[in-house]
Amino acid sequence: MKKIKVGLIGLGTVGGGVVEILANHTEDFKARAGVDVTLARFADRNEERFAQLGLDPDKCTTDAFEVVADPDLDIIIELVGGTGIALEICRAALEAGKHLVTANKAIMATAGHELLKLAEERGVNVRFEASVGGGIPIIGPLKRSLVANEISQVMGIVNGTTNYILTAMAHDGLSYDEALSQAQELGYAEADPSADVDGGDAAAKIAILASIAFNTTLTMDQVFTAGIRTIDAADIAYADEYGYAIKLLAIATRTPEGIDMRVHPTMIPKIHPLAHVNGVDNAIYVIGDAVGETMFFGPGAGAGAAASAVVADVIEVARDIITHNVTKQCSCVDDLAVRDIEKLKTRYYVRMIVEDKPGVLATTASAFADHDVSIESLIQHMCEEEGFAETAYVTHAASESDIQAALEEIRALDIVCEVASLIRVEDL
Amino acid sequence: MKKIKVGLIGLGTVGGGVVEILANHTEDFKARAGVDVTLARFADRNEERFAQLGLDPDKCTTDAFEVVADPDLDIIIELVGGTGIALEICRAALEAGKHLVTANKAIMATAGHELLKLAEERGVNVRFEASVGGGIPIIGPLKRSLVANEISQVMGIVNGTTNYILTAMAHDGLSYDEALSQAQELGYAEADPSADVDGGDAAAKIAILASIAFNTTLTMDQVFTAGIRTIDAADIAYADEYGYAIKLLAIATRTPEGIDMRVHPTMIPKIHPLAHVNGVDNAIYVIGDAVGETMFFGPGAGAGAAASAVVADVIEVARDIITHNVTKQCSCVDDLAVRDIEKLKTRYYVRMIVEDKPGVLATTASAFADHDVSIESLIQHMCEEEGFAETAYVTHAASESDIQAALEEIRALDIVCEVASLIRVEDL
Repeated sequence: MKKIKVGLIGLGTVGGGVVEILANHTEDFKARAGVDVTLARFADRNEERFAQLGLDPDKCTTDAFEVVADPDLDIIIELVGGTGIALEICRAALEAGKHLVTANKAIMATAGHELLKLAEERGVNVRFEASVGGGIPIIGPLKRSLVANEISQVMGIVNGTTNYILTAMAHDGLSYDEALSQAQELGYAEADPSADVDGGDAAAKIAILASIAFNTTLTMDQVFTAGIRTIDAADIAYADEYGYAIKLLAIATRTPEGIDMRVHPTMIPKIHPLAHVNGVDNAIYVIGDAVGETMFFGPGAGAGAAASAVVADVIEVARDIITHNVTKQCSCVDDLAVRDIEKLKTRYYVRMIVEDKPGVLATTASAFADHDVSIESLIQHMCEEEGFAETAYVTHAASESDIQAALEEIRALDIVCEVASLIRVEDL
Repeated sequence: MKKIKVGLIGLGTVGGGVVEILANHTEDFKARAGVDVTLARFADRNEERFAQLGLDPDKCTTDAFEVVADPDLDIIIELVGGTGIALEICRAALEAGKHLVTANKAIMATAGHELLKLAEERGVNVRFEASVGGGIPIIGPLKRSLVANEISQVMGIVNGTTNYILTAMAHDGLSYDEALSQAQELGYAEADPSADVDGGDAAAKIAILASIAFNTTLTMDQVFTAGIRTIDAADIAYADEYGYAIKLLAIATRTPEGIDMRVHPTMIPKIHPLAHVNGVDNAIYVIGDAVGETMFFGPGAGAGAAASAVVADVIEVARDIITHNVTKQCSCVDDLAVRDIEKLKTRYYVRMIVEDKPGVLATTASAFADHDVSIESLIQHMCEEEGFAETAYVTHAASESDIQAALEEIRALDIVCEVASLIRVEDL
């Protein structure tokens, strides 16, 4: 049995998980999958990790490019993260004729097309199952198991950190700041949580899923992205009153005017299964013309989950090496446009703080009406601070351009102190 | 691009779906997947299907073995069903050196091991994604995406027909017979519904999933199987009162004493997501040591769903043909025992009709106690027929052998008219 030698670059928590799985299951993989996979070289900037993981010092280096250049290696696992040095490592690995396994969503959602093309030129494979959905099998099923379908939509909860925060706010009554702190204490959020809470992580993931689902190259900068920093306990309470839960959804839909791709806090009916996906769990719906609606659920974060996906990719690549199988890397043969967010037509929830004066409601309502935004319902509460009121509107379906124009007019009104929240409503 | 020629045997609803998908998407598959797949020959016992599907009569035959023997064909799709002639077709196809795609759960759950071994000998592939979960990608993810995991459990709702019937009973208040008739009218149940309602279909599916999950050869006759014929509207009502829903679950668990495999009506907490899987939908949980808990959801029945899975298998096999890739077919390298159902330890719901006399409760309760079965709660109602009462017990965890011994004693009591239902309770 040919020994497949693997270089592992990046020994963080996921890297540690990969080391552990391969240490415990090498014999299983030989017997069950017919592949003999060995971690032969390791690189990390932090030398202390080598001893912490009990690795042979002779196999370890702080220079990632030494591993990439090692002619003995067949596969490089890139777990460095980010788009700087990590992208250079990925490029160098492919250029050296090595197969690549990566968990790097930022790279795949920006330079994925370039890497896949480079891999095709060099006759090697790139796999990136762990870049979306943690350990949930989703890229493989989408690329292979659902290949017979014309996919109309991929959407769901793809960021564990924000889902943890929104769950803690809704279930435990925490403020956004309290929930964020708790997520940080538990290791679910970074010290700088921007990539998660501002929606960038989810945008990268939906760009990857949409590229595969719609066979077209899409990048994360093409995703309309709004994060959860502005979500207030008041919004959670109004949502509850209206029968909704608030989740950060990533949505990609095929439309006649192009692919509609967006990440934003979304009010969804409390009875929809996505409303019950809590904590760091992820759930991704895929709708195809033949299969109908399918859903993939599991832990979206955690060392074990991501390592499970990384090792599965390594085993698959190892099988392909043994059988000299290099499949088509990129299926982005269609060239679909991205629909401008202005063309979105959906319902909206708008919360604003206004002066408590006669005629205020009529004035704001007529600003909506001026821009063809029709109000479905509203709830008005007096603010604690005397002389002010808080109004939570839900509109009928309106276009994004109309709601934005209406809000511009409303913000300019003297009697309006603040448009505090705008949350899109999806009835799924 | 090499033309891959496919013979399709069995032109029922799923076969019709396969014809439709390949007619509409051949160019897509060329562009996206790099394979040129053509349905070149068709066989069905019913000649009328050829014209109904608009097939070229020259490509059609009523003799399946003519198709199997056609030297021009690379892949045979077997959609005949059952274990008689279908198994002969599968064997003959593999012996003729053809790759095989089948949706046949009965064959895979009885002779799967034999067919996979035969395929390995002949250097061809067997794929059977459509045999479990309709269009839900589950066999591919389990075999490949979750390969890095030691799986501890696979379980869920794998039969659409019984789930439709149980949903109709619970939500619409239908009797079992009414719900079955409705399912038959809608085409969700066969005229002879035995394979579905007696649990055999689910047993075949869990045997297939468990074989893959636990890397050991398991067959459907090793699955403890109880169907839903005995479920009464009264049981649904008591379940509701106790906070449970009744679902036909298929459960396979790795235990120190072997694999516990069973299919039976099960009371599960109403708040568990499986309690909300309704109609013909299926949902399958897979729990692995690295990934944790994942779930796969989608339509478990329907021509489009199953055809989606069949065509995906055909595309994968076509890719493998082009790259001369024959992967290991069977990963059943472990030889695990099956645990006897007697060793099951769980909670039980027991409904019985008793004479309404003083001391009846004490007598039945002491029969339970004699066999170490401890009662957690009971609800007793007077029957409409005077002089009789209906008692619904829920026990604490007890062993299957103890509960069966207790029920044998109870059935023999003069004051007990009938032990009407025994339903296992899983707190998931």
